[in-house]
Amino acid sequence: MDIAIVTLDCFNELDSMIAAGILGRMSPEGWNVRICSPAPVIQSRSGTRVERQEDLSYANRADAVLIGSGWRTRDWVADDAIMSQLRLDPSRQLIGSQCSGALVLHQLGLLPDGVACTDGMTRPMLEQLGIRVPSAAFRVVDNVATAGGCLSSQYLAAWVLLRLAGEAKTREILFYIAPVGEEDAFVQRALSIVATASEPALR
Amino acid sequence: MDIAIVTLDCFNELDSMIAAGILGRMSPEGWNVRICSPAPVIQSRSGTRVERQEDLSYANRADAVLIGSGWRTRDWVADDAIMSQLRLDPSRQLIGSQCSGALVLHQLGLLPDGVACTDGMTRPMLEQLGIRVPSAAFRVVDNVATAGGCLSSQYLAAWVLLRLAGEAKTREILFYIAPVGEEDAFVQRALSIVATASEPALR
Repeated sequence: MDIAIVTLDCFNELDSMIAAGILGRMSPEGWNVRICSPAPVIQSRSGTRVERQEDLSYANRADAVLIGSGWRTRDWVADDAIMSQLRLDPSRQLIGSQCSGALVLHQLGLLPDGVACTDGMTRPMLEQLGIRVPSAAFRVVDNVATAGGCLSSQYLAAWVLLRLAGEAKTREILFYIAPVGEEDAFVQRALSIVATASEPALR
Repeated sequence: MDIAIVTLDCFNELDSMIAAGILGRMSPEGWNVRICSPAPVIQSRSGTRVERQEDLSYANRADAVLIGSGWRTRDWVADDAIMSQLRLDPSRQLIGSQCSGALVLHQLGLLPDGVACTDGMTRPMLEQLGIRVPSAAFRVVDNVATAGGCLSSQYLAAWVLLRLAGEAKTREILFYIAPVGEEDAFVQRALSIVATASEPALR
């Protein structure tokens, strides 16, 4: 499996790196999890510089694409030079967004029912675009998922695992990454949220 | 405040980047959160390459030092050229370890009571060194904390926030990073675990 973690400049470490770290646990099984970016080096909102592993074209042919968040996503969404590189296809790819990554999905026309989960900062921006935002961490419509709140990146990763690696492997990986002593509760919570994610309550 | 996130080659993204991402939210308040490493570029266990922001000497003068985990920590602990660069002092610094980072604390003589939290992979290595490992995610003795299970890095970060930024700011940041809809439960769980961390049950 090829997994693209789309990461744009001024990215939020939690969003891209939790997903990359969790899904990277499938590397021994042959998964390729790659930080994809339009620039060779990207900088986090706190100043950490990370080398991209692939350019954005990797996302177009990946089995799953997760769009990370950051504090300048709105600028990048307005940048045709970046956005024109993304040609995602939910009929053959799993596509997910984390927090402000939902702005990218909206720009690409990937929120056809006009609903997306996101964080509190991005919420007014999406609402201004006519997107409704449920008070929920995670939502799935067919092959497209949206997540809100940095740490919901763990649910986004769990969803990809569940869809592409199966429940047993998902449980194994979630169990391992949980805080010691919280393993069963964490696995249960993550699986339950992913399972019910197609019907979050709308405010 | 100067915060050192000590990150060694083959590092676990979850461990270093969750702490860096959470504590980096204090940057607008003047905190300097820095990825510190012996090498100019370090690679994660999944192959992500990150530029260090400071060398290890930064850790020696930082207000708080968090030692990340990775799959080659045991090798680095045996490497005098690396370990001799670390001269940490719990009388004037907060010092924390994530998972296999506890091996570093042991090597530096920073586990005087012979107990540390860690993950399931590191546990036998620590036990072989005579360290007892409680079935708990987080433990604090004076200014030294140990955490076990990748996602317990959120508790390590919460502990640093609580000690150096106060409870109101800690609540604000934890609330923001929580999955949407889980904010209150997450803040409560993190604060409760940090508050009770000095007395985890020993097996």
